[in-house]
Amino acid sequence: MKSPPLRLVNVTSYRVIYGDTDQMGVVYYANYLRWFERGRSELLRQIGLPYPIIEQQGFHFPVVQVACRYTQSARYDEVIQIETELVEMGRASLSFRYRIWREADRCALAEGTTEHACTDHSGRVTRMPKILLDALAAALILRMPRCSTQNLDRRGNFFASFAIALNLKPPL
Amino acid sequence: MKSPPLRLVNVTSYRVIYGDTDQMGVVYYANYLRWFERGRSELLRQIGLPYPIIEQQGFHFPVVQVACRYTQSARYDEVIQIETELVEMGRASLSFRYRIWREADRCALAEGTTEHACTDHSGRVTRMPKILLDALAAALILRMPRCSTQNLDRRGNFFASFAIALNLKPPL
Amino acid sequence: MKSPPLRLVNVTSYRVIYGDTDQMGVVYYANYLRWFERGRSELLRQIGLPYPIIEQQGFHFPVVQVACRYTQSARYDEVIQIETELVEMGRASLSFRYRIWREADRCALAEGTTEHACTDHSGRVTRMPKILLDALAAALILRMPRCSTQNLDRRGNFFASFAIALNLKPPL
Amino acid sequence: MKSPPLRLVNVTSYRVIYGDTDQMGVVYYANYLRWFERGRSELLRQIGLPYPIIEQQGFHFPVVQVACRYTQSARYDEVIQIETELVEMGRASLSFRYRIWREADRCALAEGTTEHACTDHSGRVTRMPKILLDALAAALILRMPRCSTQNLDRRGNFFASFAIALNLKPPL
Repeated sequence: MKSPPLRLVNVTSYRVIYGDTDQMGVVYYANYLRWFERGRSELLRQIGLPYPIIEQQGFHFPVVQVACRYTQSARYDEVIQIETELVEMGRASLSFRYRIWREADRCALAEGTTEHACTDHSGRVTRMPKILLDALAAALILRMPRCSTQNLDRRGNFFASFAIALNLKPPL
Repeated sequence: MKSPPLRLVNVTSYRVIYGDTDQMGVVYYANYLRWFERGRSELLRQIGLPYPIIEQQGFHFPVVQVACRYTQSARYDEVIQIETELVEMGRASLSFRYRIWREADRCALAEGTTEHACTDHSGRVTRMPKILLDALAAALILRMPRCSTQNLDRRGNFFASFAIALNLKPPL
Repeated sequence: MKSPPLRLVNVTSYRVIYGDTDQMGVVYYANYLRWFERGRSELLRQIGLPYPIIEQQGFHFPVVQVACRYTQSARYDEVIQIETELVEMGRASLSFRYRIWREADRCALAEGTTEHACTDHSGRVTRMPKILLDALAAALILRMPRCSTQNLDRRGNFFASFAIALNLKPPL
Repeated sequence: MKSPPLRLVNVTSYRVIYGDTDQMGVVYYANYLRWFERGRSELLRQIGLPYPIIEQQGFHFPVVQVACRYTQSARYDEVIQIETELVEMGRASLSFRYRIWREADRCALAEGTTEHACTDHSGRVTRMPKILLDALAAALILRMPRCSTQNLDRRGNFFASFAIALNLKPPL
């Protein structure tokens, strides 16, 4: 029997301010990208590696692609929730998926994705920093204490690409 | 011999301010969506129908989907150019494509698309306002003064979907 | 012996995102005004009268003046705290004072003020809505259960102007 | 007879986008500070010294104080004009005054001031860079070709503090 894939997910919340809205009476569409950023920032903090630490080590994750689909409008003073999931990881790239909903009634508002390159200070594409791989491995292992390493590579897409990024050969 | 498809395109420029940048020293990724909005706003003005007029008539074009691919970074004080093209038009929707480049060396920075619904004041999806269809028709006819109406429907995707939106049957 | 003046104060916190920063590596100066807005919004919620309720009743509090003094820079990923105090209230105006500090070391970052008019939907200046006066009175009385009404007008500037706004004559 | 004081002024224009507005249907108050920044950036370009050059030389002019008074609301799609004037200059500081008006009817919308420190890359307050003083001197001299240097110090506040910054002793 196949295990469900491992997922690395963070949920954080945000209160909409007046400055987020536009004259249609709803949140301006560009501001959802600020929420995506907040979400992935919290996900990195959750695995013990806040993005400032990554930058101090000389790495950046600039966005190379973003997409967002808007289904309902967020409005002033509402609390929205931002679910962020790490969905892909390559040697020099990573991708997140986001879902935004209104806290009060859990109504889905938007969903989207971002793809990021990994670059050094000069902007050159470079391999993922080892500190990130270590933090991810620790986060994942904490969540499956009894599984053998042999099972790890059966746990779905995330781990597969994660393993590739780590340059690991199955069985681990 | 087939005519090249008709295109409805606007190019406008913008000077990057400090407030558009982030601590990576480049323009923050969400701000490109502000430029997309500036671009489509100028395209509507170009066809003689500024968006405030559309809103005064009780219509809105909320964004239902956006995508952007970033290739190079825009930087503080650079002049960027925003090319906007109307690429799709349905009974109650329209889509724009955008290309952003740096004016100085015409280096491509980003490209993207937005899809919009057409809604009334209450947010209900509704048919495109006739004033927009008329303005588009006028803009297109101005640009092909000698062609017969019979040729119009051979002029590529834009016109085809435009004609459908107008509920026209070829020959016009 | 004189009582200390009554103060109506809210403290709320905010995590700085990348999008708040500029290429100097610190929060862009205009974004502090977003924090001021967040602060006064929370103060109104604290007294049981969120700003959306005020707007639903047909009132707005547009900013007519703002000032901010910056002493230290807020930086990416820091948690800042926003202290908001209602400091003046007239028949058709109110003012808030703000102090921003970094949560980690309580270092003062900025302080400022905003002055607001009270207007109706058409933008005309109008008297403060009664629901706000009632909410303020309730908030203040809750905090001084044993004092007689006779003492109220000795409690400093806020109450004095509050009383004037209410058109009250001491003793209440 | 006293000469009118020398003034260093720039006027630039900006088209309001949807993203600048809020749900009150007018431009969000923090965005006027973005316009102030645009104005002073254009003033520096006008004297031949764009701010990126100043930063490349290792200097920054962080805002230490801002004030803005709002009289009328800017609205979506309006063209506004930003008048920026350099009003004070000290050894390690400078101040600008701004006036914003609507282009269509020249209706005054807002006015404000910013005060800036001059710092080096590490954030330490430092003397104004010589390149700025030279650029200012050139800009001023161009505009009064026939006046003797002896008259310069009678030309009002700006020049007086400018002269002090230059460490000049009258007569020049």
